[in-house]
Amino acid sequence: MKRINEAEAAEILKSKDNILILTHRSPDGDTLGCAFALRRVLSGMGKTVLVDCSDDIPKKYSYMWGSSEKNYNPQRSMEFTPDFVLAVDVADSKLLGARLMEKFPEIPLCIDHHISNTGYAKMLCLKDSAAACEIVYDIIKCLGVKPDACTADCLYTGISTDTGCFRYSNVTPETHIKAAELISLGARFDEINRVMFETKTRTYLRLEELVLNSIEMYFGGKCAVITITKDMFKQSGSNETECDGIASLPRKIEGVKVGVTLRERADGTFKVSLRTYAPVDASAICAKMGGGGHARAAGCDFAADYADGKKQLLEIIKTELENA
Amino acid sequence: MKRINEAEAAEILKSKDNILILTHRSPDGDTLGCAFALRRVLSGMGKTVLVDCSDDIPKKYSYMWGSSEKNYNPQRSMEFTPDFVLAVDVADSKLLGARLMEKFPEIPLCIDHHISNTGYAKMLCLKDSAAACEIVYDIIKCLGVKPDACTADCLYTGISTDTGCFRYSNVTPETHIKAAELISLGARFDEINRVMFETKTRTYLRLEELVLNSIEMYFGGKCAVITITKDMFKQSGSNETECDGIASLPRKIEGVKVGVTLRERADGTFKVSLRTYAPVDASAICAKMGGGGHARAAGCDFAADYADGKKQLLEIIKTELENA
Repeated sequence: MKRINEAEAAEILKSKDNILILTHRSPDGDTLGCAFALRRVLSGMGKTVLVDCSDDIPKKYSYMWGSSEKNYNPQRSMEFTPDFVLAVDVADSKLLGARLMEKFPEIPLCIDHHISNTGYAKMLCLKDSAAACEIVYDIIKCLGVKPDACTADCLYTGISTDTGCFRYSNVTPETHIKAAELISLGARFDEINRVMFETKTRTYLRLEELVLNSIEMYFGGKCAVITITKDMFKQSGSNETECDGIASLPRKIEGVKVGVTLRERADGTFKVSLRTYAPVDASAICAKMGGGGHARAAGCDFAADYADGKKQLLEIIKTELENA
Repeated sequence: MKRINEAEAAEILKSKDNILILTHRSPDGDTLGCAFALRRVLSGMGKTVLVDCSDDIPKKYSYMWGSSEKNYNPQRSMEFTPDFVLAVDVADSKLLGARLMEKFPEIPLCIDHHISNTGYAKMLCLKDSAAACEIVYDIIKCLGVKPDACTADCLYTGISTDTGCFRYSNVTPETHIKAAELISLGARFDEINRVMFETKTRTYLRLEELVLNSIEMYFGGKCAVITITKDMFKQSGSNETECDGIASLPRKIEGVKVGVTLRERADGTFKVSLRTYAPVDASAICAKMGGGGHARAAGCDFAADYADGKKQLLEIIKTELENA
């Protein structure tokens, strides 16, 4: 694996055509913002560029591919034979999802902001910025292209969603300067933030009601655990695609240092999302459960069943809280 | 009334001593941020500067006056005889509250960002910026002072709280550039945003659970109504002071154009809070109920009882939705 900088990444992209951009599974605003901003800019340079994702792309991101194509059709990407493949905001090739991981066992280029990146790509353009979209924006600058309003929408979305709208500790002065530039370029920040942060479906609100009823507190109120079961999804009519923000809920409770969200998958296994406040290290806790992530946001799976998995996790959290 | 710019305001402040800074009643992050930032900078120039407010200053803002003074004592301000008085973020002298309005019938200087400012002060430094703290920051620059970290905390707080943490349409590129500078100066933005936006008490979450259960939808999902009864406060252990954000809840539901919050007071009467999305005019609806406010946020009271008041309000909303 070779580390490259933004200017080198731009030179490589300039020299390529028939490019496929891969996002991570369960796509979010940052991975999609990177992919569709790059696609738009490179297409504008006369190249053929498509985006692929193992999972469906939620409708709320439809403004990213512009009004000319109302439905982004991943089918087209499946039938496309690219000459060059890159992954954006993908820390580990596993996160591409089974279909894309099998199809592309070798990834020539990865653009990412996770310091935990496994180095699976031949070339890695990595910076510890708040959002991968910050790096993509710098690459676009190196390409000598002025982003149009739709590209600015894509890049702003990644920055806004990965920082909780400029709330989190990953924000730097550079993050705000880029936001200022993107707004000047025409990013519809108020509409984007409304869709990303303000709008809740009725089914999601019903789910939130059930989840609020499930809160358990541990270790003198320093740890809050919520559990989302398949049954709650069924009762509320909600589903996993609506739950982006729910993992941040338990950490919001006054006094909580570790917020835990346990979400039951269709197969009955549990996905664990951890959110912490300094100095508790979420990635250290999840690493002990076979997972990983960032210092304040990390994830893992329960290897055992719910009761045993929770017991094991709570013991690790207890130790981390005592050491913190 | 004479309009002055930031440089002129700075010159005036330079020439004064024994200064009293007045905030608006029900003080928020912007009025307090202006007051304590200016106080800190002017005190650093050797002047005696105090802050006064008609209402108590919530504890969550205690970082604004620095660690040397844990409790800001408005009593001291009451006994102080100033040589110069200015109001910050106060659009109308009525908003000073009865005590300060009576004590200071003439206000020499007002620094404000409300275009609706009534022009009650002899000199007015007004700009249509997202937060009054943006103007105060420019005045501090004109004073030739580099803000310390605590001053940066104050100014960042005003900007962040008056923009819903950079979400709302009042944000400009300049807002983000100032945030970038304040973070560089040491503003503890993550901690501030956590206190201002993230932290929810357990009692508030219990109330939210009860309130979510009370949602009623009208007019094909375009209007959502929540009701908060005295009994819900009792059941949850919450109270009115925890409910700042709850009025924004019904408008968050997908498809909703008019969000209505009906809150029962201790005396059994109901306070109505309306939040709308364009083009529905919240102030027009509330005006017909004897209330008022802004285009997207307004309020009124029920003159009649709950059932009749709600019926009357829903009829007005129906008409507005049909005309919008």
